[in-house]
Amino acid sequence: MLSVMKSVIRGTGSFIPAVIINNSDFSLHDFYDDRQQRITGASGEIVRKFEKVTGIYARRYATSDLNASDMATLASKIALKDAGIDPETLDYIIVAHNFGNVSKDAIQSEAVPSLASKVKQSLQIKNPSCVAYDLLFGCPGWIQGVIQADCFIKAGLANKCLIVGTETLSRVIDRYDRDSMIFSDGAGAIVLEKSAEGDIQSGLLGSVAQSYCFEEAEFIYMGKSNFPESDPNVRYMKMAGRKVYEFALKTVPLAMKQCLDSCGVNIRDLKKIFIHQANEKMDNAIIKEFYALYNITDLPSFIMPMNIHELGNSSVATVPTLLDMVRKGVMPGHSLAAGDTIIFASVGAGMNINAVCYRV
Amino acid sequence: MLSVMKSVIRGTGSFIPAVIINNSDFSLHDFYDDRQQRITGASGEIVRKFEKVTGIYARRYATSDLNASDMATLASKIALKDAGIDPETLDYIIVAHNFGNVSKDAIQSEAVPSLASKVKQSLQIKNPSCVAYDLLFGCPGWIQGVIQADCFIKAGLANKCLIVGTETLSRVIDRYDRDSMIFSDGAGAIVLEKSAEGDIQSGLLGSVAQSYCFEEAEFIYMGKSNFPESDPNVRYMKMAGRKVYEFALKTVPLAMKQCLDSCGVNIRDLKKIFIHQANEKMDNAIIKEFYALYNITDLPSFIMPMNIHELGNSSVATVPTLLDMVRKGVMPGHSLAAGDTIIFASVGAGMNINAVCYRV
Repeated sequence: MLSVMKSVIRGTGSFIPAVIINNSDFSLHDFYDDRQQRITGASGEIVRKFEKVTGIYARRYATSDLNASDMATLASKIALKDAGIDPETLDYIIVAHNFGNVSKDAIQSEAVPSLASKVKQSLQIKNPSCVAYDLLFGCPGWIQGVIQADCFIKAGLANKCLIVGTETLSRVIDRYDRDSMIFSDGAGAIVLEKSAEGDIQSGLLGSVAQSYCFEEAEFIYMGKSNFPESDPNVRYMKMAGRKVYEFALKTVPLAMKQCLDSCGVNIRDLKKIFIHQANEKMDNAIIKEFYALYNITDLPSFIMPMNIHELGNSSVATVPTLLDMVRKGVMPGHSLAAGDTIIFASVGAGMNINAVCYRV
Repeated sequence: MLSVMKSVIRGTGSFIPAVIINNSDFSLHDFYDDRQQRITGASGEIVRKFEKVTGIYARRYATSDLNASDMATLASKIALKDAGIDPETLDYIIVAHNFGNVSKDAIQSEAVPSLASKVKQSLQIKNPSCVAYDLLFGCPGWIQGVIQADCFIKAGLANKCLIVGTETLSRVIDRYDRDSMIFSDGAGAIVLEKSAEGDIQSGLLGSVAQSYCFEEAEFIYMGKSNFPESDPNVRYMKMAGRKVYEFALKTVPLAMKQCLDSCGVNIRDLKKIFIHQANEKMDNAIIKEFYALYNITDLPSFIMPMNIHELGNSSVATVPTLLDMVRKGVMPGHSLAAGDTIIFASVGAGMNINAVCYRV
């Protein structure tokens, strides 16, 4: 019977890269628009405007000796130690990313062997029955990995899964594009385990996942640099910012509500929202709209922890990193207690959306 | 209850690229070894030796106007038509690949948005609940997609899934490396559906998946060209051929036996083996060893359809393409009938292995 067991988070870990890039580091930067025209006006002013909209003061870049699979391994080690389980007992290693390993100063993405294979090797796990694969689902990839792991656990294919999100966006962005200031590097991981007999209070309650591709597939895409003299064959991650914003605002609150309602959770009982750290203004608008769907205009205090101000948007890594920081007590005003109901939600390239409801 | 329903293949499709590259096309080629030394001797002789070992006479390359997601769409359309289902009723689109879309003459891999998103868009599917994601698991990625889809169906997350394997290896190979002659382009797809009430005779019987990474992760890897004057920052798919061969021979027969035994299938009842078209000599050795595990030395006739001679090794695409060709009756001497028990098996980068037992 499926209903008597749940998937429980046993441990979390994250890796926050060492290199801090402040907004002031961009203040002498030349920016170009998507028609390859130089954006006139003082760069300092462009950066201040950026800061106001996104809430981002700083972001982190990986040092050149580390790539996405290295960061994934570092985050995984912390999560495994936190969970207190023997890595050899893992049934799955799921690594969500979008660009694979991108070496510094080489735009080429590498995912052969898969990052999951590299992580498994670095964790020195020998058990061949621990299946290691990579999942590409845009920024919501890590949450989708959790949904898949929960499915493997429910179907009896797995008892313990490691789910990692890792990305080095600093290596695929176009530095001539203002949007490049949003993006960051990082990795986060959790260990998800089948609940013990009788322990049915805590665990994953339900999930929703959606892919909007008909008109939306190219809202986040690979395109040439905004810099006129750049090599047109080299592609960088690009975003139709306004379209992404409007799309997210229209779809994410509904998906979150659908998830919450399907789990039979009263919105008043929701203790914390872990949302993909995409853009502060957008995340605030999503949450406001989410509560508005329940006719609530007074949002609870400390409902939405955010680390985007200092860490930027590290794609698949934002949600597990944020969860790890709250669990470890390093986010002032934010903590989790047994019995708390929380929701994870994300939106990104695809365009994909998902939400997971979880009881601590 | 999980046991009363099964996942059934409703339709298959494949896309075989138009450009035929014969072995003779390599007979004026310069080859270098992995120490960047020119391989002496007539190229014609090198090619003849290659043909003897691999069984490959020709391979297919995609025309420059097509990339991996285009081929995936073409194969998917055929599979969907064959299944006779409305694409809007799909719950999942799973696209297995390793290199994403690689434009002709640009080595950069692109998978943002995911290939699954691009396929969903090209199929003009609007239903947002049809979840589209990419799966990276080396050459066994397509079979792994089938295993995941079966899990989603068993867990009640899905009724109908499209699983596609697509790859343009012609765009990531090092033409100075003899191994480059092995590789090919292609795409294959199936529609997997939850069986109708009471129809429990046919369907997926069981599966095995393994990841060997501790010592094996780098047996297939990205490395610099064998050509001394090449750009060392550009990476190509490379293979430690001897190690791959020995690894496959040691592990694949055992995984196939484990799969068959777990399904309670007698080897004498096995009608067809669909194995990853990696190398004729290797595949023959694997099958011989597989039967030897059951103390059988007289292999049944027509047990293993092979299309590697004309189509080469197109990674994730080989097994679904082969299945489609046998189902459509274009492989002389090979056909499938209701009640036939068959096995799919693969090995590749990771190093990953899997096997799926299925009753037609």
